[in-house]
Amino acid sequence: MEHGLFVFVDLLGTFAFAISGALAAEQKRLDLFGVVAVGYLTACGGGIIRDLCLGSLPPVGISDWRYLATSVLASVLAMGARPIIDRLEHPVAFFDSLGLGFFAVAGAHKALVSGYNVEVAVVLGMVTAVGGGVARDVLLNRVPIILHKEIYALAALVGAALQAIGQSMEWRVAATPWCAVTVCVTIRLLALHYAWSLPIVRGKDVT
Amino acid sequence: MEHGLFVFVDLLGTFAFAISGALAAEQKRLDLFGVVAVGYLTACGGGIIRDLCLGSLPPVGISDWRYLATSVLASVLAMGARPIIDRLEHPVAFFDSLGLGFFAVAGAHKALVSGYNVEVAVVLGMVTAVGGGVARDVLLNRVPIILHKEIYALAALVGAALQAIGQSMEWRVAATPWCAVTVCVTIRLLALHYAWSLPIVRGKDVT
Amino acid sequence: MEHGLFVFVDLLGTFAFAISGALAAEQKRLDLFGVVAVGYLTACGGGIIRDLCLGSLPPVGISDWRYLATSVLASVLAMGARPIIDRLEHPVAFFDSLGLGFFAVAGAHKALVSGYNVEVAVVLGMVTAVGGGVARDVLLNRVPIILHKEIYALAALVGAALQAIGQSMEWRVAATPWCAVTVCVTIRLLALHYAWSLPIVRGKDVT
Repeated sequence: MEHGLFVFVDLLGTFAFAISGALAAEQKRLDLFGVVAVGYLTACGGGIIRDLCLGSLPPVGISDWRYLATSVLASVLAMGARPIIDRLEHPVAFFDSLGLGFFAVAGAHKALVSGYNVEVAVVLGMVTAVGGGVARDVLLNRVPIILHKEIYALAALVGAALQAIGQSMEWRVAATPWCAVTVCVTIRLLALHYAWSLPIVRGKDVT
Repeated sequence: MEHGLFVFVDLLGTFAFAISGALAAEQKRLDLFGVVAVGYLTACGGGIIRDLCLGSLPPVGISDWRYLATSVLASVLAMGARPIIDRLEHPVAFFDSLGLGFFAVAGAHKALVSGYNVEVAVVLGMVTAVGGGVARDVLLNRVPIILHKEIYALAALVGAALQAIGQSMEWRVAATPWCAVTVCVTIRLLALHYAWSLPIVRGKDVT
Repeated sequence: MEHGLFVFVDLLGTFAFAISGALAAEQKRLDLFGVVAVGYLTACGGGIIRDLCLGSLPPVGISDWRYLATSVLASVLAMGARPIIDRLEHPVAFFDSLGLGFFAVAGAHKALVSGYNVEVAVVLGMVTAVGGGVARDVLLNRVPIILHKEIYALAALVGAALQAIGQSMEWRVAATPWCAVTVCVTIRLLALHYAWSLPIVRGKDVT
């Protein structure tokens, strides 16, 4: 994948993730700073956890100012320009799905080029994609949505696995990430549209 | 301690911790993926935090597939085979206590052989043993049980301290971990059986 | 800044942060161990996250016994000597503000001397100062206070930014940290006294 294009789409995903974090923070009545902080952590939290696990320090969400700037911009927009955001509602869901795909693939890719095996790549690819959303929900004091709503982490898992397997088997280098992203994004968009979710196990109630 | 035997007991502890995570997740009505994710993080979260602090990357809970596989298997069993799990109720509490002891001792041991001092070993031994349970409760949106229920972290602290002191004073190498594990597990089982808990400080209510 | 003096004030900040954590834990009816654990994590959590991000391992909050000892002492005092603590109420608020300033400046300083750029220093300076309070609130199952109460993180941000900019532009080395600490502490104390807070964005309610 061309590097410049990749960074551009990665920042689009960051933008969409930050908006989702900022909107959720607004609903919890956080102040200006809180909204920006949650927006930033939603967008960059997954990558930070990945980089901590890979020993790639400092994490790129901290060391590359473009991620911070994009997150802050998106959070400010989410607060100050609600009409624009509302008009962007469908684009935000779309970019969020796109971000999920790109983060999963980028995370798996980074783990493999850092010299780790396929299993590490799959786990860390998924962590990159969903870690920020988990951080958002933990900070806002609720059970992470990805653990009980429509298929989300599973789409990231599939994307990360395709990328990790393809890359380690040296499939056509140019095509692998595009395929993996496409499959992941497609699964997520279909799940959103048809409200697909995984079954819930109804356990015996115990204290 | 013999290496093969050690890994086997470590995986038993992982199995028991994953079941406790998965059962708690079921009660919160998480979906299939959520249950497996919480089971895995309960079992491997403590070791991941320890390895991040030691700079032993990537964390063994991510890089060694046996921990992931054991956690997933235990979580699936916890969902699909409730009668078996119910019959295993006492074994699960027993393995959980065993896991506590082994995780505490293994964490302290790993910190010392990584070249750190006794204090680091004691703290990280305890973190290895209780970190996963804290992660489980934070994700499930409740105050960590280990902070206000029967003696649990204290047993881990004692086990980690015995191992760290014994190892650094070069007590009989073969005997130290077994003693430390035995003391930790015994404290925990007695606390469970007699419902021992630490006193609660009744502070003045303030907002 | 003289090294011995610096460590002394850093430990004062640790002391004040640990008391704030222990008092909050008491109100949640945690047991003895829980109160000490939350006190310790409130005092040392920010520095631990900073050191993980900088790859300075093991984190100083774990490897330097003075921080652990100070936190435990403060937590025990918070439980056992309430009359003293009540008399210290104003000192605690004061030391907490002082700790905020010193932690922010020390965090920014450490990031710069580790070879990272100004942006990393500002972010990690703020994280050092507020990370412990966020950990405390996440463990106690509430939305972090710093995200929706009086100006707190913003004061840390200003302090970290002053230190990072001054240090990287090689302003008078001796004066920079004192200026940065003074500005940060002053902002925080004024915010406390006049109940300054950032505006809350009143978003549309959505589910």
